[in-house]
Amino acid sequence: MTRTSPDIRVAVSTVIFTLRPGADGAALALPLVRRTRDPFEGFWALPGGWLDDEESLDAAASRTLAETTALAPSYLEQLYAFGDVDRSPTRVVSIVYWALLRQDQVDEQRAAHEADGTAPENVQWFEAEDLPPLAFDHNAIVDYALWRLRNKVGYTRIAHGLLPGEFTLAELREVYESILGRKLDPANFRRQTEASGALIPTERFRTGSHRPARLYRYDGAIELAARGPVSTTSTDPDPLDPTDRNEER
Amino acid sequence: MTRTSPDIRVAVSTVIFTLRPGADGAALALPLVRRTRDPFEGFWALPGGWLDDEESLDAAASRTLAETTALAPSYLEQLYAFGDVDRSPTRVVSIVYWALLRQDQVDEQRAAHEADGTAPENVQWFEAEDLPPLAFDHNAIVDYALWRLRNKVGYTRIAHGLLPGEFTLAELREVYESILGRKLDPANFRRQTEASGALIPTERFRTGSHRPARLYRYDGAIELAARGPVSTTSTDPDPLDPTDRNEER
Repeated sequence: MTRTSPDIRVAVSTVIFTLRPGADGAALALPLVRRTRDPFEGFWALPGGWLDDEESLDAAASRTLAETTALAPSYLEQLYAFGDVDRSPTRVVSIVYWALLRQDQVDEQRAAHEADGTAPENVQWFEAEDLPPLAFDHNAIVDYALWRLRNKVGYTRIAHGLLPGEFTLAELREVYESILGRKLDPANFRRQTEASGALIPTERFRTGSHRPARLYRYDGAIELAARGPVSTTSTDPDPLDPTDRNEER
Repeated sequence: MTRTSPDIRVAVSTVIFTLRPGADGAALALPLVRRTRDPFEGFWALPGGWLDDEESLDAAASRTLAETTALAPSYLEQLYAFGDVDRSPTRVVSIVYWALLRQDQVDEQRAAHEADGTAPENVQWFEAEDLPPLAFDHNAIVDYALWRLRNKVGYTRIAHGLLPGEFTLAELREVYESILGRKLDPANFRRQTEASGALIPTERFRTGSHRPARLYRYDGAIELAARGPVSTTSTDPDPLDPTDRNEER
């Protein structure tokens, strides 16, 4: 086995999705960072940076995300390693992570950083379906993250990562509709969701202009039992963990 | 962003599972390679090697697998990137792939290489549940692969990778039982499998000591429609692709 050339370098990048009000309904959005140096100077790119000698991949993802966007998701999941020879002018293998953040979490963190004058520069949120040409192969990486997100919503409680602790079935359905990019039949959605056994009805109701709607929460015990053997930087349940679905069986 | 130190190197390793007759019923087994140099000289390790400058991660996984075991699975899927600081005496990020091979495919490839005198040395198959202490963090990597395999069997047609083109429901159930490590109720298994719509009954039957059993095949059209945007080294349907399940809906 030949020794890997020192010219192959390792980077980490992170795709963070949130749901924010869009032209028609909520839309998936993610933060991008404008590059200030070549290659691709002036292009938008995923938040990230180089892996340091003394940090794990998970730690590098958290560090570079904080350095570039000041965002701190409660959970980061490794998505995929991208290593095509021509994805960058120099040979770079990029370990890509992803996370979900609620819009109120995004706003809260931004407000905190603006208050103490540590708000990051060169960061802007874009709708996932309306991206400019990005640096490197980052458009393809976002496409892959969207593909995985849409697959996972079908058999995991991934939507949990975009919802508050308690929510109505209508609010849950809207998250699914935004991720899948299509409308769902409310009656069928209610039946399937209640049949899954994943939700616990509370005795609280959302009141307002409409008739009161019952609030539900996910069964946290199931999620906490569904963690894998791979350590993560988080103590929270994994919103992307496909084992959640299996644990329900 | 600091430039990644040249002391961080990139390797690829592959976990290949097959089902072979075990003490009680079929058991998951994988090939390991005995190391002939430090570190961990004399220890068994996953097949793999260093990423070369001019090859993609997928290509490196196929090449190093062929070089060390002479095995050529029809499909390799990227499993996870392992990069803990202390996983190796020197800093190595290992991109791990996995694949499934039927025992008859393993025997066929071994016979071909023994015939032309190219059979690899230092390779031995071990039962996944009865491994010696492996080099580096390879025990943890195998544990993770087993965990993913057991999760995926619940919502994908992963068992397809361990079955011939046509099979009986009993043969399919045995694969599930081997992966899950527990017995399944034949009647419930038949109901759930037939309800899934994933299987197409043929007009052929397995005959022998028992009464004739109908042969089934997977609906290939569904699988072929379920490939993701990430290119692979294979033209075959992805036996591990969780989108298969979603496509059925």
